[in-house]
Amino acid sequence: MAAGPGQVPGPPPALLTEAGIIAALTPALPGRPDIRLGIGDDGAVLRPSPGTELVVVTDAVVEGTHFPAGIPARAIGHRALAVNLSDLAAMGATPRWATLALSLPAPQSGWLREFAAGLLELAAATGTALVGGDTVTGPLFATVTAIGEVPAGQPAGRRGARPGDGVFVTGTPGDAVQGRLLLESARHDAAADYLRSRFLHPEARLAAGRALRPLASAMLDVSDGLDQDLRRIAAASAVGLQLDVNALPLSPQLRDVAGPDAVARALTGGDDYELAFTAPAEEAAPIAAIAAAAGCAITRIGTVVAGSAVRWHDGGREYPVPAGAWQHFGAGA
Amino acid sequence: MAAGPGQVPGPPPALLTEAGIIAALTPALPGRPDIRLGIGDDGAVLRPSPGTELVVVTDAVVEGTHFPAGIPARAIGHRALAVNLSDLAAMGATPRWATLALSLPAPQSGWLREFAAGLLELAAATGTALVGGDTVTGPLFATVTAIGEVPAGQPAGRRGARPGDGVFVTGTPGDAVQGRLLLESARHDAAADYLRSRFLHPEARLAAGRALRPLASAMLDVSDGLDQDLRRIAAASAVGLQLDVNALPLSPQLRDVAGPDAVARALTGGDDYELAFTAPAEEAAPIAAIAAAAGCAITRIGTVVAGSAVRWHDGGREYPVPAGAWQHFGAGA
Repeated sequence: MAAGPGQVPGPPPALLTEAGIIAALTPALPGRPDIRLGIGDDGAVLRPSPGTELVVVTDAVVEGTHFPAGIPARAIGHRALAVNLSDLAAMGATPRWATLALSLPAPQSGWLREFAAGLLELAAATGTALVGGDTVTGPLFATVTAIGEVPAGQPAGRRGARPGDGVFVTGTPGDAVQGRLLLESARHDAAADYLRSRFLHPEARLAAGRALRPLASAMLDVSDGLDQDLRRIAAASAVGLQLDVNALPLSPQLRDVAGPDAVARALTGGDDYELAFTAPAEEAAPIAAIAAAAGCAITRIGTVVAGSAVRWHDGGREYPVPAGAWQHFGAGA
Repeated sequence: MAAGPGQVPGPPPALLTEAGIIAALTPALPGRPDIRLGIGDDGAVLRPSPGTELVVVTDAVVEGTHFPAGIPARAIGHRALAVNLSDLAAMGATPRWATLALSLPAPQSGWLREFAAGLLELAAATGTALVGGDTVTGPLFATVTAIGEVPAGQPAGRRGARPGDGVFVTGTPGDAVQGRLLLESARHDAAADYLRSRFLHPEARLAAGRALRPLASAMLDVSDGLDQDLRRIAAASAVGLQLDVNALPLSPQLRDVAGPDAVARALTGGDDYELAFTAPAEEAAPIAAIAAAAGCAITRIGTVVAGSAVRWHDGGREYPVPAGAWQHFGAGA
């Protein structure tokens, strides 16, 4: 893996000035009518679209907390934006603009070029313009704030789940945490490589989120583990959930590598950046169509019930969520 | 001074859960029609005002880079928002919303209560609603993104200075850096206390910025030192500047404490969060009226000229800006 700042052996790396850092992070984008003033002044001046509301999200990624030291700079740049786009996806928003606050122990041109490539490639692919930022000397972290737009009045949030609704999840949760566990592993077969890429290059479910939001009664992105995040929907909506571990969409690669721990990875692993949501049962057909159009699996894993209990079942028995579940202080607000 | 995280002696401090942190940072605000969904979901849903453009700014404050370890938590909370409001002031924007990404080594309830008080008091005083955030375990830093509004089409930025324009600055630059140098000093007379408060509680010039922006040809906030920031205006506008050190508005407290170094503090000190701007000479009377209305001094210190040279003069001689000028990597983009 690429060495992080402060770990590069051999000759001293090329150091950048602040102007060089800004240049590396300022893509040569064609003009956009929604950006009157971008990077280079005290603030960006932006033009929201008529008939929309803004969705604003912010997440920081910190070395040692959200990713281990030494992962490729390109993956860190990708992650810094992707975790924010995932929040926008959960709100059904179309990404428009982002700002970056980047703190580095020492500005190295090679590291920064890779970081910028990871962030800016994802920005370009999703229509997100980097319009401002701040660069500081300090511990390695990146805070991104992303701003998207939704049609005015669209449903939003995690408070609308009603008894009788189905509970759904996109993709295959559990892969990312298994990939993280494999970062230092010598295993390099296709399954291990796939799982590592799921950790290093999370994909925000923007298209699915945009299509699902008008019909979901509650939705969020799965960043802290499926079980914990579903409990957030239950608490916010004042409902209970009946969930089926045998319905969990586990990837063959996760089953291969994790074996009997695959379910635990999916329930408590975190870092998935999939969407979990509830929707009325009659939306099953539209949801299937959205899955096909977005090119990602959407699987029903349970039912909303009255009360407040969140229970997983394995056949007829209750399935106890493994202890040591993901309880990090670093969960997003 | 209050001890920072990780430095508290004696019994273990009260630790907070993430929910407790969010509760501490979520003010009990009356509903605002511009906020459809605030803290507690994946993103905030906000309603921009018709006829306005958005101004988005972001700045991180990092322990050891932007403030020394051990300064009061309340001052850190105030600073995290104030440095962003200062950028909004330079753009002439009215602050509306902000997000916070807060990283703490360990969440201590006393420290967090003070941090939140410092941030939220300034937010309330300026009409800024904290609408989202992220809390993580890591080194002590806070990234704030603030969003303001300006009338659509209002002048913005630092690129419009024209030869013949006057060069102006608000307030009394140099106080803050002198206050920072006094943090560890035993001197506690009125002058020293005033200068420390200028570092610990910077005041964004929001009212002055809003009034000045329509008539300023270029404006920015002075965060990295008056000389360096004026050079940014010159470079962005492709002009030169003739500046007079004897016109600098030095506070009596700075003259008292810094003596012969007072001019150097004002030129290279940084952390002032005053506004520097250029404006056509015929705007002198409106500018004087704005100064009176906003309750802060606005002083003409020079003239925009053709070319690209930025020169300070002391009577008939050129004044060399002292070496060791503020050249931190951490300057805002």
